[in-house]
Amino acid sequence: MRELELIGEIEQLLAAGDPRAAGRIVRGFGDDAAVVRGPGYAVTSIDTLVDGVHFRLGQLTTAEVGNRAAAAALSDLAAMAAPAGEAYVALGLPAELGGEDTLALVRGLLETCAACGATIAGGDVSRSATLTVTVTVVGWVEDPGVLVGRDGARPGDVVVVTGALGGAGAGLALLEGRADSTALPASVAAALHDRYARPQPRLAAGAVLSTLGATAMIDISDGLASDARHLARRSGVRIELELAALPLDDGVAEVAAAVGIDPARMAATAGEDFELCACLSPASAQLATVEWSRRSAQLGTLTTVGRVLTGDGELVFADAGEEPLAGYEH
Amino acid sequence: MRELELIGEIEQLLAAGDPRAAGRIVRGFGDDAAVVRGPGYAVTSIDTLVDGVHFRLGQLTTAEVGNRAAAAALSDLAAMAAPAGEAYVALGLPAELGGEDTLALVRGLLETCAACGATIAGGDVSRSATLTVTVTVVGWVEDPGVLVGRDGARPGDVVVVTGALGGAGAGLALLEGRADSTALPASVAAALHDRYARPQPRLAAGAVLSTLGATAMIDISDGLASDARHLARRSGVRIELELAALPLDDGVAEVAAAVGIDPARMAATAGEDFELCACLSPASAQLATVEWSRRSAQLGTLTTVGRVLTGDGELVFADAGEEPLAGYEH
Repeated sequence: MRELELIGEIEQLLAAGDPRAAGRIVRGFGDDAAVVRGPGYAVTSIDTLVDGVHFRLGQLTTAEVGNRAAAAALSDLAAMAAPAGEAYVALGLPAELGGEDTLALVRGLLETCAACGATIAGGDVSRSATLTVTVTVVGWVEDPGVLVGRDGARPGDVVVVTGALGGAGAGLALLEGRADSTALPASVAAALHDRYARPQPRLAAGAVLSTLGATAMIDISDGLASDARHLARRSGVRIELELAALPLDDGVAEVAAAVGIDPARMAATAGEDFELCACLSPASAQLATVEWSRRSAQLGTLTTVGRVLTGDGELVFADAGEEPLAGYEH
Repeated sequence: MRELELIGEIEQLLAAGDPRAAGRIVRGFGDDAAVVRGPGYAVTSIDTLVDGVHFRLGQLTTAEVGNRAAAAALSDLAAMAAPAGEAYVALGLPAELGGEDTLALVRGLLETCAACGATIAGGDVSRSATLTVTVTVVGWVEDPGVLVGRDGARPGDVVVVTGALGGAGAGLALLEGRADSTALPASVAAALHDRYARPQPRLAAGAVLSTLGATAMIDISDGLASDARHLARRSGVRIELELAALPLDDGVAEVAAAVGIDPARMAATAGEDFELCACLSPASAQLATVEWSRRSAQLGTLTTVGRVLTGDGELVFADAGEEPLAGYEH
């Protein structure tokens, strides 16, 4: 496929877009910039995935790279409790990447964006020595008071996480051959692969946690240990978590054992689960527990993993002992 | 400089930001996403520069790479007649790039953004094999009717360009040693270098052309021949330009002669001048001529280079003869 034709096909794929967004996107592809009508406040995040740094093409299909790139960006909106609006995609394509693989990458981006309610409204395609995907996402809110930053955690809050942890790290260990996937039930191995390759941003959970009064929130991209530390530092508090409390994905225990590390430590440090970690008052946390049990099919699980104390930006695991957590410091 | 320290320094540089933007940027660095209050319509563009593709580090300082990356993105807002609002920057940094060079890159981005009234409100820093800079820019308008797309040119319009052309291409030829800079007056050689290394987005000119009723507009990034063809195709018209009418930067004639091509052909095809090409009714073009002569210190020059005819997306140079324009098709 010639380069101009490829760009044309990419633009057609993207411009087909989401018909629900038609009224909001005043101008999409084909001009120098996209024009979007919003209700007041734009919430914007930019994220890059680079082959060899954030993923390896031999381990993921290009469609999965598209899934992951969109999910990583949209997860930042989930962590603010912002809805997904538009996405803008810059692709750096190596000459050796085929046209079909490139279109599959775009379809992967579209799939995850559509699942989250986001519309790709603009883009840029260029050559690059290394496959590079940069996604800028924008969400719109009328009232910025619904947004949850990292800086509002208060002593007395409890700390919760959505879903289960460690699955993405275990999925990557299987992909890299550090653990043997045939030692697991096929469905468990496949689920761990998807946890790494096709992460699901927790937009619905983020919105509910905001409604329930979450005081601080972050998505778990670098690992709970690193990300909860951001909450502690930005909020000026001490956060105490418990390794024993961390919810683990099915199969994490087996993969961690094969790799030779403690499963909870894997869950605390491996990252890329794109679950949410939030702080809530005890009363809000009780309401959240009720809401999660009522809507478990949509929201999954919610687990209390620690508490917020007076402090100065410390993050500790109360039951971690003397041994430092691998990968704790990036 | 360790990586975490470097990211901290970059965030400090960026977060210092533009005090005028303080009221508009509700949340900047330090959260999962930036939160910005806008008056209604967001105009957004994303652009990537990759070392070895769009520039070569040996030829440009990292500060100039920052200038160019910001200018390329902001020029798309100029071409829509949108004001500059926020910029979001994703840096892919090779391990061998030093901390000081990286901070100089960020200062280059800040310098061009500040000159255009844009504020860097968010970013992402990651490792990459190749230096990659992706800039997403957003401008806000209350009335989308002020924006100028590529699709409104009408038969009878005249075609104008701001400033002079060919300077960036000539500057690159000097940098690459294809022409001898010592054969030019030092001030002319320095100006050509700056035309390539430190382009100036024409935001003020774009806004004035919109006020005067421009029907279609684009920035000259790929070369006038390619970019005017986009106007012709999107507007469904025929555009006839004249090579003899193209305004040339000082020194372009000498550099083109040294390289062995016609100066006007260099000006039509070399690209990256980041001037604007607009279509106007003859009456509006007359008003524009008056406005440009009145405000030449601020707006520079405006030159009529062709006309719009009934057609089907063709772009021709009336005086180009049989010889195809080099670089005409990308």
